Amino acid sequence: MNTFGTLFRLTTFGESHGPAMGAVVDGCPAGVPLTTADIQRALDRRRPGQSELTTSRDEADRVEILSGVFEDRTLGTPIAAIVRNTRQRPEDYERLRHEDRPGHADAVWRERFQHRDHRGGGRTSGRETLSRVIGGAIAEALLARDVPDARIVAWVSRVGPLSCPAPGPALSRSDVDAHPVRCPDAATASQMAELIRDAKSRGDSYGGCIDVRVTGLPIGLGEPVFGKLKSRLADAFATIGAVTGVTWGLPDLEASLQRPGLEFHAGDKRVYGGIQGGLSNGEPTELRVYFKPPATLGAHAKNGRHDPCILPRAVPVIEAMTALVIADLWLLHEARKHTK
Amino acid sequence: MNTFGTLFRLTTFGESHGPAMGAVVDGCPAGVPLTTADIQRALDRRRPGQSELTTSRDEADRVEILSGVFEDRTLGTPIAAIVRNTRQRPEDYERLRHEDRPGHADAVWRERFQHRDHRGGGRTSGRETLSRVIGGAIAEALLARDVPDARIVAWVSRVGPLSCPAPGPALSRSDVDAHPVRCPDAATASQMAELIRDAKSRGDSYGGCIDVRVTGLPIGLGEPVFGKLKSRLADAFATIGAVTGVTWGLPDLEASLQRPGLEFHAGDKRVYGGIQGGLSNGEPTELRVYFKPPATLGAHAKNGRHDPCILPRAVPVIEAMTALVIADLWLLHEARKHTK
Amino acid sequence: MNTFGTLFRLTTFGESHGPAMGAVVDGCPAGVPLTTADIQRALDRRRPGQSELTTSRDEADRVEILSGVFEDRTLGTPIAAIVRNTRQRPEDYERLRHEDRPGHADAVWRERFQHRDHRGGGRTSGRETLSRVIGGAIAEALLARDVPDARIVAWVSRVGPLSCPAPGPALSRSDVDAHPVRCPDAATASQMAELIRDAKSRGDSYGGCIDVRVTGLPIGLGEPVFGKLKSRLADAFATIGAVTGVTWGLPDLEASLQRPGLEFHAGDKRVYGGIQGGLSNGEPTELRVYFKPPATLGAHAKNGRHDPCILPRAVPVIEAMTALVIADLWLLHEARKHTK
Amino acid sequence: MNTFGTLFRLTTFGESHGPAMGAVVDGCPAGVPLTTADIQRALDRRRPGQSELTTSRDEADRVEILSGVFEDRTLGTPIAAIVRNTRQRPEDYERLRHEDRPGHADAVWRERFQHRDHRGGGRTSGRETLSRVIGGAIAEALLARDVPDARIVAWVSRVGPLSCPAPGPALSRSDVDAHPVRCPDAATASQMAELIRDAKSRGDSYGGCIDVRVTGLPIGLGEPVFGKLKSRLADAFATIGAVTGVTWGLPDLEASLQRPGLEFHAGDKRVYGGIQGGLSNGEPTELRVYFKPPATLGAHAKNGRHDPCILPRAVPVIEAMTALVIADLWLLHEARKHTK
Repeated sequence: MNTFGTLFRLTTFGESHGPAMGAVVDGCPAGVPLTTADIQRALDRRRPGQSELTTSRDEADRVEILSGVFEDRTLGTPIAAIVRNTRQRPEDYERLRHEDRPGHADAVWRERFQHRDHRGGGRTSGRETLSRVIGGAIAEALLARDVPDARIVAWVSRVGPLSCPAPGPALSRSDVDAHPVRCPDAATASQMAELIRDAKSRGDSYGGCIDVRVTGLPIGLGEPVFGKLKSRLADAFATIGAVTGVTWGLPDLEASLQRPGLEFHAGDKRVYGGIQGGLSNGEPTELRVYFKPPATLGAHAKNGRHDPCILPRAVPVIEAMTALVIADLWLLHEARKHTK
Repeated sequence: MNTFGTLFRLTTFGESHGPAMGAVVDGCPAGVPLTTADIQRALDRRRPGQSELTTSRDEADRVEILSGVFEDRTLGTPIAAIVRNTRQRPEDYERLRHEDRPGHADAVWRERFQHRDHRGGGRTSGRETLSRVIGGAIAEALLARDVPDARIVAWVSRVGPLSCPAPGPALSRSDVDAHPVRCPDAATASQMAELIRDAKSRGDSYGGCIDVRVTGLPIGLGEPVFGKLKSRLADAFATIGAVTGVTWGLPDLEASLQRPGLEFHAGDKRVYGGIQGGLSNGEPTELRVYFKPPATLGAHAKNGRHDPCILPRAVPVIEAMTALVIADLWLLHEARKHTK
Repeated sequence: MNTFGTLFRLTTFGESHGPAMGAVVDGCPAGVPLTTADIQRALDRRRPGQSELTTSRDEADRVEILSGVFEDRTLGTPIAAIVRNTRQRPEDYERLRHEDRPGHADAVWRERFQHRDHRGGGRTSGRETLSRVIGGAIAEALLARDVPDARIVAWVSRVGPLSCPAPGPALSRSDVDAHPVRCPDAATASQMAELIRDAKSRGDSYGGCIDVRVTGLPIGLGEPVFGKLKSRLADAFATIGAVTGVTWGLPDLEASLQRPGLEFHAGDKRVYGGIQGGLSNGEPTELRVYFKPPATLGAHAKNGRHDPCILPRAVPVIEAMTALVIADLWLLHEARKHTK
Repeated sequence: MNTFGTLFRLTTFGESHGPAMGAVVDGCPAGVPLTTADIQRALDRRRPGQSELTTSRDEADRVEILSGVFEDRTLGTPIAAIVRNTRQRPEDYERLRHEDRPGHADAVWRERFQHRDHRGGGRTSGRETLSRVIGGAIAEALLARDVPDARIVAWVSRVGPLSCPAPGPALSRSDVDAHPVRCPDAATASQMAELIRDAKSRGDSYGGCIDVRVTGLPIGLGEPVFGKLKSRLADAFATIGAVTGVTWGLPDLEASLQRPGLEFHAGDKRVYGGIQGGLSNGEPTELRVYFKPPATLGAHAKNGRHDPCILPRAVPVIEAMTALVIADLWLLHEARKHTK
C-alpha cells in the first residue's frame, strides 16, 4: 500500500539504490499553477549535504515532471515526477549481500518478502521521503490556490535533552530555515547544533521532536468518524520511518496530563489543538511528532553518509505530509456541500 | 468516511439518540466461530453503569446479529449487528435545540453540516465506540481461529498524576478487569478510584493514559510504506474522540527522549516496540494512548450521566481498535504470499 | 466487497433467509430531504406479488431507518435502513441441506466459502437487490436536491423474442409503470405479459433487455481513465445476478456493428450515448442491459415462489444502480473544481 | 481516478504528447520473475506500425523499469515503468490550440477541466492503453507463478459485417498473432484485412468485436456482491475509450435472447460463461467486447497517423485488462481463506 489519500492521492515508488525515486499525484484539480521549480525548491530543503550537521552524501536530486503539467498548470491528470538516484555505490553494498545492518529492519523485511535487497534500505530508507516531498509540493500548490490563508510551518522543537521555547504566532518557514538545525530560537539552535556535531564525532545520534503548526484552515475540515483531521495527521506522521509518537493539544505533555478537567479546559485554546469533534474549528492547530535516534551508530555512522540527527531534514517531510492531509480533506470537504 | 480497514472492513452507523447503533463487518472469512454471546460479552465490558466510577446511565446494550452468521459460524458475507438505543430522553435534550454544550464540538459540526442535531452528541458521542467494540469482537473471533497466539491486552496506565508501574509479561484481561478502574496494580488502582470519585463529586474530570500490549504476532505484519503497523494503530486510536496522542517504543517518554542513540538502542527491546521498518518483528509491541479529561464539567457533570474519567470504559475500545487493525493486516499479509 | 461507490457509498448486507436485509449509505451530504416513505415507495416498486406475472411470495418489505435521518432530513452521518425478512420458511429449505439447486451457484459458493447456507440463495438471491433499491432511493433524494434536472427512467425493452419500439423523449416512470410488465408500449406489453404467463404455466422462463435513459446530467460527469461514466454504469449493472451484458451507444446492435465509421458517426447523436471521452456531454444517455432467463425451471418453478421473468421487477433495480453511480460521480465532480 | 484494482493495483499516468507514459503496479508480491524483456514483448504486440493495417506512426515504445525489480525478480515494492514519447510533433498540433477535433471529446474535457491541452488526445488518446499493457505484463508474470494453468487469449471476432467462426478449444496467442488482423480464422482474417485496407483508402473506419477466453481459473474467484468476476471484467473493458459494450454467456446474442429458459439452460455450458453467482466455476469463460468505429474520418484519417480499425491492436489491451482483474481477484481470494 504505497498510496496515501482518498481524493488527493499520492503514490510513491523507488528503492534508495534503484534507478529512481518517484511520485504520482492523482486527483489534483486542473488549472493549478505548478512548475518544476516549485517542486525542486521543496526537494532542496530536504536534500542531504546542506550543512555539516547532516550526511555528507551530496545528491543533486533533480526532479523531472513526466506528466500532468502543461504550460505551468496542472491538467487534472495524474502528475508523475521522478528523481534519478545518481550516487548508488554498489561496491559499498556488495558486502551487505550476506549480512544484516544492525538496528535496521533487514531481517524483518527478509522474512516478509523472502528476499534480500542488499543494496541498502530500499523502501525503508529515509530517501523514500523524497517522494512525499514531491507530493507535498503539489498539495501546497493546490492549497495556495484554493485555501490561500492556510499556513503550515514545522520546526525542530527538541533534540535529545534540549527544548525550544514556544515560538510566537508570526513564525514563518524563513524563521525556521535561518539556522541549519531548523530550530527558530537562535540560542537553542546553536546548542542543538553543538550537541549534534558532538554526537557525529562520537558515532552517536539524537532523536527529538518536530512541532507543526497549521493556521488558516476553514472550519469543518475532517471526516467523522474515521478520517478525523487528528487521525489523518497521526497516521500521516506515523508512516515516517523514525517517528515514534504523535501528540496534539498537549503543549506541555507531563503538566497537561496531571491537570484535572476544570484546569485543563480553562481558557487555554491550545488544549483543543484547533480540532473539535475531529474537525478543524478555525483556530491554529499544533501537533508534536516524536523521533527516535537513528540506529546507524558507531563505526557505521562515522563514514559520514548518515545523519546523526534527522530532525532538521525531516522538517520539510512533516510539512509535506501535513499538506497532503489538508489537501485531501479539502477536496473531501468540497465534495459534500451540505447546503445547496 | 465511516469505514475502517482495507480487507477486514468495519462500517459504523448510529447517532447516540437515534433508534440504534450498528456495525457492518465486511471481509471476515467464512467459517469463523462466532455467537451473539461473543459480541455481547465484549459490549458488556464497555457498558455504562458498571461501577460508581462511571456514568449512572444504565443501558442494557443488547446486541442483535442481522446477517452474516448462521449456525454459529460466519458465512463470509457482511456481518451486521445492531444495538437499540433505549434510554433516549428527548425531554432532556429539547433545551439543547438552541444552545451549544460548552466544551463540545457542537458549533463546529453545525458549521460543517449546516444543521443541528440537538438530541445530543450524535456521532461525536462516546456511544459511537459501541460499534467499534462489535467490530473488535468479530476481529478477535477471526484472530482466535487464524492467529491463535495473538494476545491484545490494554490497561489504564495513568489517571491524572497517578501512574501504574509496568505490569509483568503474564498480564491478562482478567488481571485488568479485577479492579473497576482497570489498572492492574491494585494499590495504584485504589488511588485512581479515589481520585476519580473525588473528581466526580466536584464536577471535575481526569484524563490519562491507556497502554496496550500486543504479543504473538507473526513476523512481517504491516504494509510498507503507508499502512505500517505503527501508523495503522496510531490512526486507529486517534479516531477515538478523547484521544490526544499516541506513542510507541518510548516506555518512559521524557527519559527516552533525552537518551542519545548509543544508549537508546542499547539492549532495550522495547525501543523497537515490536515494530521494525513498519512491520511486526515477532516481539511484544506496546503503545501508549493519551486521553484528555472529559469536557463535561461542573453542574453539567454532576447529573451523573457522564463519566468523570472515561479511561476504564475506553480499555475495551482500545483493544477493539487494535484487533481490527491486526485482523486487517493479517488478511493483507495472507493475500500476498511471497513464495509459492 | 459489499460496498459500492467512492464518495457516495452503499454497503449492503443480509441473506435472503436471515433475519434482515439492510443498507448503509455513507457520504450522503447533510440536509437532504428524506423520509421513510421515500424509501418505502421505491421498495414497493420491486416488491414481489405485484401482479400475476411475478412470484406469488407476498412480502411486505417494510423499511425502518436506523440512523442518519432526523426530522426528515439527512444528518450527513451514515444512513442505515433495514427490512426484516418475514417469510422465511425454514421447513421448505431443510431438504436443501444436502442438495444443490440445479442451475444455481450453490456448488461454487460452497467451494469458495467451504460451507453451505442451505436456507436458500443467501447473498446470490435476487432479494439482495432490495438493499440496492434502498441505496438508490437515497441517491435519488440527493439528486433531487443537487441535480434537479436529472431524470432516470428504465423500461423493459425486450422479453425473449419480443422487442419494444423506441419510446419517445417524454417517457416517464408512470408511463412505464402503467403496465405490470413495465414495457411502455401497450401492445408489446400485452404480448410480453402473455408470453410470461405462458412460460409460468410451463415452468419455463424468459430473459430479455432493460433499457435505461438518463437525461439532464451536467457536462463532464465521470472520472477518466478508470471511473468513466460508462464503465461505472457497466460495472453497476454487471453486479446484478442475472445480468449477462451491457451495451451503450448501439441502439440497434446488429445494424450498428455493420456500419462503417462514416455512416456510424453521421449525425445520430445516440452513437455517443451521451458519453464522450468517458464523461457525460449533456446529451441523453441510453444503455441496454441484457438478462438471461431465470434458472429455476420445471417443477421447481411451478410452486409459484419464483419469477418466470424478472425483468419487470428489475426495472427499479437498474434505476437504483444508475442513481447510485450518478450520485457518486456528482460528488466526485464537486470535489475537484477546476477553477476557483 | 487513475488507479485500477484493490490489492493488485495499477496506476497509470502520461499524456500522449507529454514527456512519457507510465505505470505503477502496487501490490505485486515479491519474488515473481520479471524482466524488462517481459514487458517489452507485451508492448511490442500493441505497438503502432506493425502492419499496413494500422497507423503508420512508428514509435519504438521502449520501456524502462524504474523500481520494484532487482536481479530479475519483483521486490514486493511498487513497480514503476515508463515509456518516453519520442514522436511528439508539436507543430502538427499547434493548429489545434483553438479548434476541437470533430467526433472527439475535446469540448467535454474542456468544459470539465476548464483548459485545453491542444497537444492532442492527452489521456483520452488510445496511447493511454500502453500503461495498461505494462500492468498486464506484470499481472501475467504473477499469474504464471501462482495460477500457472490460467490462460487468457483474445481475438478479433468481428470487423464491421464480418464475423469469425468460434475457434476451437486449443486456441493460443500465436494462432491469433499469425495474421496481422488478429482473427484466428485465416479466411475471415483475409477478408477483414481487405475491408480495413479499403476503409483506410476511403478515410473510413470500422468497429467490431473482440472475444476473450479465460481458462484454468481456480473455482471461486470473484467477490460477491460488488466485485463479481463478471462485473470486474465488464468494468475493466468499459474503461477503454472505444468500447461500447460487453456481453458474456451469450455466444450468439440474438438467438440467445430469443430462447426461453428451458432451452437456454439446456446443456450449453457457455451460457454460464464460466461464472456462476459472480464467481468462477472452473469452466472456461468467454466475454465479447464491442468497439465502435474510430471517429477520426475523412481527410483527418488519410494522413496515416490513425488506425482505421483499432481492433487488432486492442487485442493485447483486452488481455492486459483481463490479467489485471484476474491477478487482483486472485490476491483477494488468497486473503480470505475460509478454512484454517
